[in-house]
Amino acid sequence: MHTDLVAALDIGGTKIAGALVDGHGRILLHTQRATPAQEDGDTIMRAVEAVLGELTGSPLWSRATALGIGSAGPVDASTGTVSPVNIPGWRDYPLVERVSAATEGLPVELIGDGVAITAAEHWQGAARGHDNALCMVVSTGVGGGLVLGGRLHPGPTGNAGHIGHISVDLDGDLCPCGSRGCVERIASGPNIARRAIEGGWQPGPDGDTSAAAVAAAARAGDSVALASFERAAQALAAGIAATATLVEIDIAVIGGGVGKAGDLLFTPLRAALRDYATLSFVQRLTVAPAQMGTDAGLVGAAAAALSRQSSATTAAGVGG
Amino acid sequence: MHTDLVAALDIGGTKIAGALVDGHGRILLHTQRATPAQEDGDTIMRAVEAVLGELTGSPLWSRATALGIGSAGPVDASTGTVSPVNIPGWRDYPLVERVSAATEGLPVELIGDGVAITAAEHWQGAARGHDNALCMVVSTGVGGGLVLGGRLHPGPTGNAGHIGHISVDLDGDLCPCGSRGCVERIASGPNIARRAIEGGWQPGPDGDTSAAAVAAAARAGDSVALASFERAAQALAAGIAATATLVEIDIAVIGGGVGKAGDLLFTPLRAALRDYATLSFVQRLTVAPAQMGTDAGLVGAAAAALSRQSSATTAAGVGG
Repeated sequence: MHTDLVAALDIGGTKIAGALVDGHGRILLHTQRATPAQEDGDTIMRAVEAVLGELTGSPLWSRATALGIGSAGPVDASTGTVSPVNIPGWRDYPLVERVSAATEGLPVELIGDGVAITAAEHWQGAARGHDNALCMVVSTGVGGGLVLGGRLHPGPTGNAGHIGHISVDLDGDLCPCGSRGCVERIASGPNIARRAIEGGWQPGPDGDTSAAAVAAAARAGDSVALASFERAAQALAAGIAATATLVEIDIAVIGGGVGKAGDLLFTPLRAALRDYATLSFVQRLTVAPAQMGTDAGLVGAAAAALSRQSSATTAAGVGG
Repeated sequence: MHTDLVAALDIGGTKIAGALVDGHGRILLHTQRATPAQEDGDTIMRAVEAVLGELTGSPLWSRATALGIGSAGPVDASTGTVSPVNIPGWRDYPLVERVSAATEGLPVELIGDGVAITAAEHWQGAARGHDNALCMVVSTGVGGGLVLGGRLHPGPTGNAGHIGHISVDLDGDLCPCGSRGCVERIASGPNIARRAIEGGWQPGPDGDTSAAAVAAAARAGDSVALASFERAAQALAAGIAATATLVEIDIAVIGGGVGKAGDLLFTPLRAALRDYATLSFVQRLTVAPAQMGTDAGLVGAAAAALSRQSSATTAAGVGG
């Protein structure tokens, strides 16, 4: 018998991906559409329904027992609604109800995209075997999720692990979220680039002012570019240390474009962690690059769906 | 049958308290000794054994099925050892083994004192009925603990919830822990007093430079004293908001001497929380004064012991 097949949706501001995933995390069917992010809510939902249509049309569909959604946040798992910052047509949009209607009542599990990435890294990636982990995406924004006591910790609304918006500089720069000195406000790719430019760094002839261009300059020895990465690493270290001090994680996994900077980020990050993670019970904390690729959101959404089924909790290593 | 009686120890730098506690949290027998905090490890252990002797000598003792210890930290529940900052004679001291030996092998549960206070507030105090809570003690130091998903979250070593040593000011003042800008470094009683004195506040004729004296001056309209409390409230708000953003708590309970300052602390704290707790899923967060008294550590240690017994998990509302 094959009852361990689940459907997964990964909904972001750029694309809507769908998949059928087996109990080992293998993607058996994959499909995606561009997100019509500036359209009205119903138009966006039709793109989701087109993705779902390709899944439900598959001969494999009859084996699907649940559906997991990892969505750009904020989400509200307690009401089944989403309000993604980058999808203005959806505000308190009843996504769970609509997806359930489009899949003839399949049980639906909704989590934020940072939580989904975390579920994937814990199941199959760099956090595998770790009972207490923080997984992060450091990119245009900074997101994350938590594994506590061997289980995914989405929190009541599915948003736990939002490390990008904890303040590590209470008098610092205003963040678009309304707070000050958030980790994201210091460590995201655009903020790494902004700080380098403000410090006098100048892009090359191609005019590329991305964090990747700053990283290239830093590798070539540009001190302003290096300093901007070091400041990002310091903010990430303060945030990671805070998380470890609060909930006792033993590993922080970092993915996303900025995470791909490698040693340029990880060397100052490990040094700064020694400054901020000082109490005895957090000194064993390690950091590691993410291992999952672009399908992490789908695999993580599948893990969340599998965790609804008690028999799958052990297999997937996650739980609600 | 009465099988729901447990023993509890509350070990701090000043006193060692012991009790027998029933399944409703009632203290049936209470005893305590001064902590010989500057003596060698064995001398301190003899004070613990004297407290235990009064418990084991009681006719009620035969009904005790487990023993909970809430100890000044850091503790290490994974090894059963403690290294309390204020008790230098104990470093990696095998407290669980010694207590177990002195009680003929009773199962022993070790947690940090902040976690114990949290268990007590969740069982019988201000966090009762809240499935996701942070409980804090703001006093000479700043400690805390977490309830997540309806259960106590001590973490693998029993130290989770250490909010006093998360950095909310990554370039801020050095903290004795080695980090910078910790919540405790800004919001503890001695730091409230230090900041007021540095700002020009002068104590009255009695020379009292405690945080309580600063609070009295603030109530009388002293602007420097008021500002010092407001800065403490700001740091607490940033730390509480960070905790809520990371793990989705819906209430923060504040006890300890500084917590007793009442509106002087809570009014600016609630205002600052609106600045730092900005994401949709943390805006429902409330703060409340602690309700438990001086027995909170004993009641919380008892709750942790009860939670070892599956039948008691529901009764106590806590779990490992």
